[in-house]
Amino acid sequence: MSRLLRTDLAIEAREMLLGKVPEEIPGVAMETEDFGEIQVTRVRIETAEAGERMGKKQGSYVTLEVPGLRQKNTELQENVARQFTKELLAMANLRDDSSVLVIGLGNWNVTPDALGPRVVRDLLVTRHILALEPETLGEGYRPVSALAPGVLGITGVETSEIIQALIEKVQPDLLIAVDALAARNLRRLHTTIQIADSGITPGSGVGNRRLAISREIIGIPVIAIGVPTVVDAVTIADDLMSQLLHLMMQEAGVDSPVYKVVQSIAEGDKRAVMAESLSPYGGRLMVTPKEIDTLVEDMARLLAGGINAALHPAIHREESGKYLH
Amino acid sequence: MSRLLRTDLAIEAREMLLGKVPEEIPGVAMETEDFGEIQVTRVRIETAEAGERMGKKQGSYVTLEVPGLRQKNTELQENVARQFTKELLAMANLRDDSSVLVIGLGNWNVTPDALGPRVVRDLLVTRHILALEPETLGEGYRPVSALAPGVLGITGVETSEIIQALIEKVQPDLLIAVDALAARNLRRLHTTIQIADSGITPGSGVGNRRLAISREIIGIPVIAIGVPTVVDAVTIADDLMSQLLHLMMQEAGVDSPVYKVVQSIAEGDKRAVMAESLSPYGGRLMVTPKEIDTLVEDMARLLAGGINAALHPAIHREESGKYLH
Amino acid sequence: MSRLLRTDLAIEAREMLLGKVPEEIPGVAMETEDFGEIQVTRVRIETAEAGERMGKKQGSYVTLEVPGLRQKNTELQENVARQFTKELLAMANLRDDSSVLVIGLGNWNVTPDALGPRVVRDLLVTRHILALEPETLGEGYRPVSALAPGVLGITGVETSEIIQALIEKVQPDLLIAVDALAARNLRRLHTTIQIADSGITPGSGVGNRRLAISREIIGIPVIAIGVPTVVDAVTIADDLMSQLLHLMMQEAGVDSPVYKVVQSIAEGDKRAVMAESLSPYGGRLMVTPKEIDTLVEDMARLLAGGINAALHPAIHREESGKYLH
Amino acid sequence: MSRLLRTDLAIEAREMLLGKVPEEIPGVAMETEDFGEIQVTRVRIETAEAGERMGKKQGSYVTLEVPGLRQKNTELQENVARQFTKELLAMANLRDDSSVLVIGLGNWNVTPDALGPRVVRDLLVTRHILALEPETLGEGYRPVSALAPGVLGITGVETSEIIQALIEKVQPDLLIAVDALAARNLRRLHTTIQIADSGITPGSGVGNRRLAISREIIGIPVIAIGVPTVVDAVTIADDLMSQLLHLMMQEAGVDSPVYKVVQSIAEGDKRAVMAESLSPYGGRLMVTPKEIDTLVEDMARLLAGGINAALHPAIHREESGKYLH
Repeated sequence: MSRLLRTDLAIEAREMLLGKVPEEIPGVAMETEDFGEIQVTRVRIETAEAGERMGKKQGSYVTLEVPGLRQKNTELQENVARQFTKELLAMANLRDDSSVLVIGLGNWNVTPDALGPRVVRDLLVTRHILALEPETLGEGYRPVSALAPGVLGITGVETSEIIQALIEKVQPDLLIAVDALAARNLRRLHTTIQIADSGITPGSGVGNRRLAISREIIGIPVIAIGVPTVVDAVTIADDLMSQLLHLMMQEAGVDSPVYKVVQSIAEGDKRAVMAESLSPYGGRLMVTPKEIDTLVEDMARLLAGGINAALHPAIHREESGKYLH
Repeated sequence: MSRLLRTDLAIEAREMLLGKVPEEIPGVAMETEDFGEIQVTRVRIETAEAGERMGKKQGSYVTLEVPGLRQKNTELQENVARQFTKELLAMANLRDDSSVLVIGLGNWNVTPDALGPRVVRDLLVTRHILALEPETLGEGYRPVSALAPGVLGITGVETSEIIQALIEKVQPDLLIAVDALAARNLRRLHTTIQIADSGITPGSGVGNRRLAISREIIGIPVIAIGVPTVVDAVTIADDLMSQLLHLMMQEAGVDSPVYKVVQSIAEGDKRAVMAESLSPYGGRLMVTPKEIDTLVEDMARLLAGGINAALHPAIHREESGKYLH
Repeated sequence: MSRLLRTDLAIEAREMLLGKVPEEIPGVAMETEDFGEIQVTRVRIETAEAGERMGKKQGSYVTLEVPGLRQKNTELQENVARQFTKELLAMANLRDDSSVLVIGLGNWNVTPDALGPRVVRDLLVTRHILALEPETLGEGYRPVSALAPGVLGITGVETSEIIQALIEKVQPDLLIAVDALAARNLRRLHTTIQIADSGITPGSGVGNRRLAISREIIGIPVIAIGVPTVVDAVTIADDLMSQLLHLMMQEAGVDSPVYKVVQSIAEGDKRAVMAESLSPYGGRLMVTPKEIDTLVEDMARLLAGGINAALHPAIHREESGKYLH
Repeated sequence: MSRLLRTDLAIEAREMLLGKVPEEIPGVAMETEDFGEIQVTRVRIETAEAGERMGKKQGSYVTLEVPGLRQKNTELQENVARQFTKELLAMANLRDDSSVLVIGLGNWNVTPDALGPRVVRDLLVTRHILALEPETLGEGYRPVSALAPGVLGITGVETSEIIQALIEKVQPDLLIAVDALAARNLRRLHTTIQIADSGITPGSGVGNRRLAISREIIGIPVIAIGVPTVVDAVTIADDLMSQLLHLMMQEAGVDSPVYKVVQSIAEGDKRAVMAESLSPYGGRLMVTPKEIDTLVEDMARLLAGGINAALHPAIHREESGKYLH
């Protein structure tokens, strides 16, 4: 998939593919469920070919879409956390004594990229307590450890190498990785949570199989939790111009000579405009709502609360919503 | 000026107006000076008509453009701080005992809007010391006070009302206001400093004369210092699509039937695309570099250092660069 | 009262005065009520003489003591917020259309002093909305405005002057000021909330009546809300040494020659030790729990939630706990 | 050494041991050098017995003491950074191509403990650039990697295990660990930098040899850089009371009956007072200056600048001071 069409969301990959024609792709199963303000979509990419067509790896992708999350609404946040806990548990398949390592990907010092580290900050980490003085916790807690390793530019070490080194020491039964994602569509920012079991490829490792972390490579299940916090400026620029061209061609009509001319010259011009306007900044320009600081903070609390409830039955029993904060 | 063409920079207002034809506007004087990596442009809008054509109020606008500021370079930062101090002093016209009130506009909790409050944090504030125990400071300090009042959404009070209330109490000889600006052109982000004496209109007060603060209204000179930290997503979208259309028409050629068609349908389509894609977010979507946290922090230090040196001769004597940090 | 015995809490002033003998002070009425984990004490200093003996101004002082707050416990936090709302409403005596100005005293950049500004950040501020577009809010909201003016060292202006300037513009019916306090006793840190109607004397203004803000001076009621976040190192050092001397004299026995000697030399030695060990740091050394960042953050949310519910009936109706976060 | 006498500084261990009698300890070599406002002390503990008497491991301990650092003084900070670079280079014994791993110990979210992570944030990390695109850097850079792993309470994993896992992957030639220390004496806070080659024992691992990281265990040199940011409240309480008792006995005179009585009862009473006043808080009470946020920030910049200059000759050549900021 071209970089310009980059998205980290399976649900968007599918939308892009389908375009306006809602036909089915063989090897892709999908179901949606509606819980009032929360819509859950479960996509299963069952074959390698389907994965290739989708530009996504084989596996399960569960998406919670909650447009209302952009407004501060404590009650809705609690409901979303509860649904998120349910979906996470359904995918995780935990035993009572499963041990879990949670990795917060991203960079503490860059707000839109700080989601993972902030989730780690709010987790109930128990591995050391269960090992040294389990009686202080009581029943109903699984051994949970966590790390926010930072990003390649800060550590000088591939994040996947750090994670693998830690997995060898900690020997967890499940790896959960939390990350801020790039979306393609602005309306998904801070309103969509994706849970997937197809593995992760932290940061700069895009397209570099050696650096991916998946069940096949590390031998334990990997669940990736992501929330889009930015749209790449290049993506949105491409989208806007494509929509403009599409509209113009529609209006001119397919029989008009203009249609063909626009079609023939437009794609090159689009590239030229972006090369001139955006390229000097590399991939480092992002589009984001002004209230990004609050949105990231709130989402980190929601995810940490939901993960805490999923991993620790003692918390789950007492209503996960209580533990968001 | 249409909202789509919004910029807070006089230098951009002029560029927009001039377009590709570098003709002169009557009533606008301009000079540029080159100091290696720093280019200084001084625009003087001398008549009300010129101001109207420029979409800017009458007054002096000095702009420092330093493309290198986007890279972390301590030495360049120090040089820019020194030049900034000089330009500020040239505009400020201070007596030895002039008292100055510095206002940091913007919102502490929103990174791209936090420039003003962060400058206030790093200022050398002396009014209370000079009043109570001047001997602890020695010679060479002017009475400086400061406030970061926050924004309307946080205070519930128009920022200009808060400023006026404070001016009545403090009775300064000069008001300096520091603010994060919106630019039109991405390359200006965090690389351009504007100093102007035409007054300020904090935040939501756009277009509301009652809420402007200028020499005519408060009776003392007002100097506004601004640095662009974001480009409004609407602005950039408009620019990109305009460039695309321009390129297409150029390529088609003015005699082609396509030229006319594109011209006739494109403007409406552009509006339609933006209405559909961006409008749901109001004016709250911004384009900004990912490293915004660091860029704002560094710029706040540079400005605070430069203002400290300008307001306190004792600091100026010992090289302003030393006081950036 | 000597600086060494400094406390901002009426409940501690009373304890100090009473010592071990629980006799009553004339002109001081006190009642306590127990709500499980929350103990509420209401002290009323009714005469000027009683105030002098207590080292506190005449007025009502309500204290919520909640030792459990030091542990992170969302449910308890919600209960405390509800009780706090009740006590605040009982003291505030609001009409349906009373307008309220909330001042967050203290310094954003110094964690233990940041309580007030952080409460302001989380308030539901409505004055501007009710003035410009009341229909977006609906029924049940009072006009609330807020300011976190900073401290004298940052502004160069007495905080009480800034507040008075703002009161003249905004003309509220009630002033609420939120501040971090110094306690005398470590166990009160982050576990005690004081609500008082006797006025405030922000920051450096200690002992300077001109700078106090009270009902007599500004003509509207003033409610101060405070939570101890630090104990002054001098206070705690004095306490520890006094306890040591007390214990030693007790053990030696009142008839022992040692008793008299200790009594005669100890007080001077105590001063000498403190002068040597702590004086170089002025009043700037504090004792505080390591987890101060989290404790301040949690308390700010609790107070903001409780104030929001007290000031806006629409929020109160839907359970204040929901709005803590 | 008793917990009450805890210090992380070799220079304090020696002071405690020596008390008022300046005799020499066999097996301990010491030299001091004076650079104006900077005093450098180099202690070498040469034998195991000497180490035992000092309560410190065998090795070299270099201490920079700079009382002036408590005041904001950019020039002094630069001078200290330069001297720190020299001392670090003298201890590090680097080859031109030595690779270095820097570990920032401590907790991002707790200001006085955040020194290590903040140093990591400001390091020039190069390992990945030298591996992938060395030409972008040019000559004069060593491969440097870094990690701020967090603390046991956040990760659930012993920090030394995380470090060892990373060392196995990265295979550095030298490990540098930066940490906030506890001092015994208030005047050392934020004014003293210790550089030692005797290994580290991160966090909770106190006294647990398995968790120490030293040259013997990992096979490469380990340099620990530490700055005291807090004094444990228990330590300072003990000190104050000891000084008080000492003074009292001195005044009473050694022949007085009081002397003996005080001596005999005081130690027990001291313990009783501390048990009652401080024990409820465990080791979690600290004494620290109010301006801790700024002091930690400034020190992190100083250390990062000094380490950058030590590890990268290209930076060293251009004056390390320039790179503090």
